Amino acid sequence: MLLQQYSSIRRHSETICKPLEIEDYVVQPIADVSPPKWHLGHTTWFFETFILKPNFKGYEEYNPKYNFVFNSYYESVGARVVRTDRGNLSRPSVTDVYRYRAYVDEQMEAFLQSDSIADDVAALLELGLNHEQQHQELLYSDIKYILGHNPLFPVYSTNNVFNESITPSTDFIDVQRGVYQIGYNGNGFCFDNELGRHNVYLDDFEIAANPVTNAEYLLFIKDGGYTNFRHWHSEGWDWVRQNAAQAPLYWHFIDGMWMHYTLNGLHEVDPNSAVCHINFYEASAFASWKGMRLPTEAEWEVASGLFNWGDRWEWTNSAYLAYPGFKKEAGAIGEYNGKFMVSQMVLRGASVATPPGHSRNTYRNFFHPRHQWQFTGIRLVK
Amino acid sequence: MLLQQYSSIRRHSETICKPLEIEDYVVQPIADVSPPKWHLGHTTWFFETFILKPNFKGYEEYNPKYNFVFNSYYESVGARVVRTDRGNLSRPSVTDVYRYRAYVDEQMEAFLQSDSIADDVAALLELGLNHEQQHQELLYSDIKYILGHNPLFPVYSTNNVFNESITPSTDFIDVQRGVYQIGYNGNGFCFDNELGRHNVYLDDFEIAANPVTNAEYLLFIKDGGYTNFRHWHSEGWDWVRQNAAQAPLYWHFIDGMWMHYTLNGLHEVDPNSAVCHINFYEASAFASWKGMRLPTEAEWEVASGLFNWGDRWEWTNSAYLAYPGFKKEAGAIGEYNGKFMVSQMVLRGASVATPPGHSRNTYRNFFHPRHQWQFTGIRLVK
Amino acid sequence: MLLQQYSSIRRHSETICKPLEIEDYVVQPIADVSPPKWHLGHTTWFFETFILKPNFKGYEEYNPKYNFVFNSYYESVGARVVRTDRGNLSRPSVTDVYRYRAYVDEQMEAFLQSDSIADDVAALLELGLNHEQQHQELLYSDIKYILGHNPLFPVYSTNNVFNESITPSTDFIDVQRGVYQIGYNGNGFCFDNELGRHNVYLDDFEIAANPVTNAEYLLFIKDGGYTNFRHWHSEGWDWVRQNAAQAPLYWHFIDGMWMHYTLNGLHEVDPNSAVCHINFYEASAFASWKGMRLPTEAEWEVASGLFNWGDRWEWTNSAYLAYPGFKKEAGAIGEYNGKFMVSQMVLRGASVATPPGHSRNTYRNFFHPRHQWQFTGIRLVK
Amino acid sequence: MLLQQYSSIRRHSETICKPLEIEDYVVQPIADVSPPKWHLGHTTWFFETFILKPNFKGYEEYNPKYNFVFNSYYESVGARVVRTDRGNLSRPSVTDVYRYRAYVDEQMEAFLQSDSIADDVAALLELGLNHEQQHQELLYSDIKYILGHNPLFPVYSTNNVFNESITPSTDFIDVQRGVYQIGYNGNGFCFDNELGRHNVYLDDFEIAANPVTNAEYLLFIKDGGYTNFRHWHSEGWDWVRQNAAQAPLYWHFIDGMWMHYTLNGLHEVDPNSAVCHINFYEASAFASWKGMRLPTEAEWEVASGLFNWGDRWEWTNSAYLAYPGFKKEAGAIGEYNGKFMVSQMVLRGASVATPPGHSRNTYRNFFHPRHQWQFTGIRLVK
Repeated sequence: MLLQQYSSIRRHSETICKPLEIEDYVVQPIADVSPPKWHLGHTTWFFETFILKPNFKGYEEYNPKYNFVFNSYYESVGARVVRTDRGNLSRPSVTDVYRYRAYVDEQMEAFLQSDSIADDVAALLELGLNHEQQHQELLYSDIKYILGHNPLFPVYSTNNVFNESITPSTDFIDVQRGVYQIGYNGNGFCFDNELGRHNVYLDDFEIAANPVTNAEYLLFIKDGGYTNFRHWHSEGWDWVRQNAAQAPLYWHFIDGMWMHYTLNGLHEVDPNSAVCHINFYEASAFASWKGMRLPTEAEWEVASGLFNWGDRWEWTNSAYLAYPGFKKEAGAIGEYNGKFMVSQMVLRGASVATPPGHSRNTYRNFFHPRHQWQFTGIRLVK
Repeated sequence: MLLQQYSSIRRHSETICKPLEIEDYVVQPIADVSPPKWHLGHTTWFFETFILKPNFKGYEEYNPKYNFVFNSYYESVGARVVRTDRGNLSRPSVTDVYRYRAYVDEQMEAFLQSDSIADDVAALLELGLNHEQQHQELLYSDIKYILGHNPLFPVYSTNNVFNESITPSTDFIDVQRGVYQIGYNGNGFCFDNELGRHNVYLDDFEIAANPVTNAEYLLFIKDGGYTNFRHWHSEGWDWVRQNAAQAPLYWHFIDGMWMHYTLNGLHEVDPNSAVCHINFYEASAFASWKGMRLPTEAEWEVASGLFNWGDRWEWTNSAYLAYPGFKKEAGAIGEYNGKFMVSQMVLRGASVATPPGHSRNTYRNFFHPRHQWQFTGIRLVK
Repeated sequence: MLLQQYSSIRRHSETICKPLEIEDYVVQPIADVSPPKWHLGHTTWFFETFILKPNFKGYEEYNPKYNFVFNSYYESVGARVVRTDRGNLSRPSVTDVYRYRAYVDEQMEAFLQSDSIADDVAALLELGLNHEQQHQELLYSDIKYILGHNPLFPVYSTNNVFNESITPSTDFIDVQRGVYQIGYNGNGFCFDNELGRHNVYLDDFEIAANPVTNAEYLLFIKDGGYTNFRHWHSEGWDWVRQNAAQAPLYWHFIDGMWMHYTLNGLHEVDPNSAVCHINFYEASAFASWKGMRLPTEAEWEVASGLFNWGDRWEWTNSAYLAYPGFKKEAGAIGEYNGKFMVSQMVLRGASVATPPGHSRNTYRNFFHPRHQWQFTGIRLVK
Repeated sequence: MLLQQYSSIRRHSETICKPLEIEDYVVQPIADVSPPKWHLGHTTWFFETFILKPNFKGYEEYNPKYNFVFNSYYESVGARVVRTDRGNLSRPSVTDVYRYRAYVDEQMEAFLQSDSIADDVAALLELGLNHEQQHQELLYSDIKYILGHNPLFPVYSTNNVFNESITPSTDFIDVQRGVYQIGYNGNGFCFDNELGRHNVYLDDFEIAANPVTNAEYLLFIKDGGYTNFRHWHSEGWDWVRQNAAQAPLYWHFIDGMWMHYTLNGLHEVDPNSAVCHINFYEASAFASWKGMRLPTEAEWEVASGLFNWGDRWEWTNSAYLAYPGFKKEAGAIGEYNGKFMVSQMVLRGASVATPPGHSRNTYRNFFHPRHQWQFTGIRLVK
């Protein structure tokens, strides 16, 4: 079972990369976007470093220098290539990275067929698989950024890449005040930052049944949303001016019409899809313009059973901080989440790019408020 | 009464500056530190712009160009000198700024003696006075930075500048779980960000009766606190390395002894005072090293009746965000607080530099997590 | 005689600063502009460090920390305040700096009255006096920058500060090809970089009898000089775009008219004065637009007897490099000139701000090509 | 003949790239280093833009968007990808670039077989071929940088890539004072910056028969050359400190031994080869340490018949400036050389990476003084 799950998840990463040219695997147009071959190598390094090397007797490391190349941010596991430099590395080649994957997969499969996997190793394995799924979503975001910032606007696929499920609606759902519980308490997998189910007190609120659409967002643009400082955080307004921002990422005003780049190429903006690729500043300014606000993550989680979600990561007005009783895990794995708990905002839900089986209503995604390159959207509260 | 309060607060700003040389009023060693003469002019500009010009018939603006020089961040009130450029302006001279103050004070006194002050103007006046008090604390912080970063280490005063009230103790106070209320609900003045008294649910916690002392902080330093990434946020660890940080701001290791610069000059670190001038990263790393944590702002406020506070602004683990039901005021005053509600952490309490009468247990101070130059300290929770 | 010269030159620096407010002595709006009090202290430090301390028995250093504050770029003489930080230092105060001058002057006068000054010390003294004269010109440039970049445009003096001697003319002077000699060979003072009189071969050339006037430069502006890349060096064109340059420094287009800031305040541009405060890129672009070129420093020096010069430092098309046979002096004084012989262009002549008695036709002034803040102009060659 | 020359030169660029992996064609580790596929595309774009489009009737542009991607610095020919962004472009793919080359080559061959090539077009063609040869040398420099900065130190070739011709010697050659002529005056091709053969006067000098070897440079390192500011320009000393420089580029001190990366991989430094990959600051500091100096470009050219050259580009102490009588060509081609004549130093000779047939003793190569990544060396003068 574990073996099958392992193989299936590992294959999915490669499927995502199938439409790429070799060259697309290599570049890093901004620090936040990693080269696809780096994602493929880094997720592999995770299994090699945390599962095989400490637990599989006789395992021979594929290449000791790969630790330096494919470590992301684990201080405990030694020196690493500075993040902004990943795009300078032409080697290991894409072929080498796939060979590395094949080698580690073969060893992992042998390991998983062995008699008994200790519980703590099984837990690490599950973490590794969820980690790879996180990178699958990053692969989509990063590939879109790489292709969408090329002057030739290459098409990733001529097939429909994502299924969107939104039916526009302007309904709001009432939630009554009271003490609620949030945080994970199931038996399955969750990240450490979801643990510590705890009470929160919420006041009455109404939450939108649907995310904001492109049509609604266009009204904000047309009403001068990007030129009126009143709707923006001070930091957001600085961002608008420094970047001459005037629309979501990937939108281009061409011959009097708003077009946007998608993985299917450059197309007219679809008024009925949920707005996508906006940062926290934009989400918040839009809400202010509407005279509403963003939900807190507690509000979102409590109400999440009452609406459909999953097309866009939805910005909340909650900073990414520890839940009461949060405990870092020992060792390198303890660096997974806790050390990022400052200066970031929580996003809830999931997106069209999230792999199947990788979403929960307790999932706490987080990014710096300036980031647009994820599949992010807005759900309003009033 | 109002008149007397006005005069007394206005005089206090000038008293703080009395020990300065003319030159000390002018410089801006880092963007966050404003020249003292700018503080004196800016607080005056506030009364001129928001009280006198719109409300005092026949008022003649002192100098129309001063709006450009002394506006801080009010987009609604026109162009302003970029914050990092304040220290490039030798004019208006210190004498001119004091003349400007005298002129505005004279007019304000005339205005306040007139028959009747409308309620909304009285509210603005109260805001202006609290605003000036905030700048009084900044004057202390900024003067300390200016003198404390001069290679001659000039002495601000040979008298004791601040009275500290700490009696070291390692007691912790128990608080029981339950729904509590936080936020301002008195009849006096408060800032808009304190409003919206609301319920919060808190779990059991124990909070320290006293802030962390220099002696305790020294143990952290000696135990390698600044060289062990495990205690730090990722962003904090970057800060440590980029700044080669190894102690609180103003600490110098001289001839085998830890000295620190105070407004009384360079002296040996006092083991029994509360540690001061540490940023959120340091506060948080210290707590992690102790196996404890920082309080949330709700915990702090709920427990605040049970301990002494007021010597140090105490970092909480709460991000600075809107309370439920927060409403921005209309007009320029609406820019006072709301637009900063992102990427900052809340500090609670007050410090030795806070003017008398300017503290409340609902007061929400906020700074970016990297800032050390305020009179900040640590209170632990376990 | 030496004593009289010493006193007279030292007094002149103070005369230049007389119209300043205390505050004007302190600021450093850009790295290239030093605070006037720093100039006053640094020139004093030169005499104390190189004359008094090594040569005057029993001399007591005024304040050992001043070496750190007032050293400019002499690596041999210990640590120094980073250049961009000079404007952060409120202390020593202006009064302290004048006290330091008075102390050193008193000691210097005592020293100069003593029996006999060794030849090498006399040479250092002469260097120190020329050094102070160089800083007198910098005082004018830096004061102009400080006041001219203040939004209040303060007037330095209501008297005419400089006498300009230009009578517009479009004459060109012929010089015949041949081997000429350049470099200093008199008996008076010169800098080490002028030494090594040597042969150069020059082709025929014609050199303008007068520098380019504001009227001529305005034609360049009106003809789109700042918007046509063809006239500019690649590096110059980058400079134009990054700075949105469209006129010389201190020029402002106000209500349809070109005004410029002078030490007498903001006035209409005088069409008949020589254009001033342009950098090498601008000088060179102007020459290209005219279909002419800038002189080499050898051409300038050879022809210098045939025209009037001294109102503007004239950009040449010669890079600042060693003359054949150039030798660095031993010790700290060897750092005076040689170590700057890369990436700078030579200017010849002198300017209205050059102190009397401080000009020679062999004088090699040098600045980076981007600098505008000196009293620089253009002389054409065809 | 022209056709044969065209084909042979075009093939050579591709031969240089033959050992590369696809990924190596794509990256741009620093702004100065361009991706190899960009070189291949840009040289092709040159022929398409300047020869085919204006002169070959019926020529159909390969892809109009390529102008944007492959223009380097020709302002006259429209917008272009910002230089630091070249490494962000995964498309056009390497295959596409080779297709582009094949298409343009086919068209060029058809064009060159047509009846008569006008003289001005023939001149442009010759320029285009020399331009491609310049990029062949850049291909070597850039490939070396890309592979040499990869933590895996990939080997470009296991065959000897370059033939070095140096026989170490400490001889110096005397040249007598007098008026000499420099500049090109042959009948073949030269760049516009070599034209204007003119007289120069030179004093007596002695010039080394050979470039400085690694063994000699090691003595400089061992004698503390990189830690003694006295040998360095001020700007060079800043460079040393900012980069913690302690040896030429590509040198690594490993297990007590100096190794260097070459296109054959990481090897022990050969004491008998000419030192390579040093910048002007290093060349100049080395000369100062030896008590000697670098030649001027006139000295180099005049003496060039008396020694062997061609293994290293040799830094001169001449800034890159126009020769007397220099004239920019009309049109885009006029941007080729003239606009770079500021802030750069001249290098003379050629290097092992220079293509055969692409060197002349009048050739004026030029780079900013900080650059190390070319095949640069030192020849001393005393």
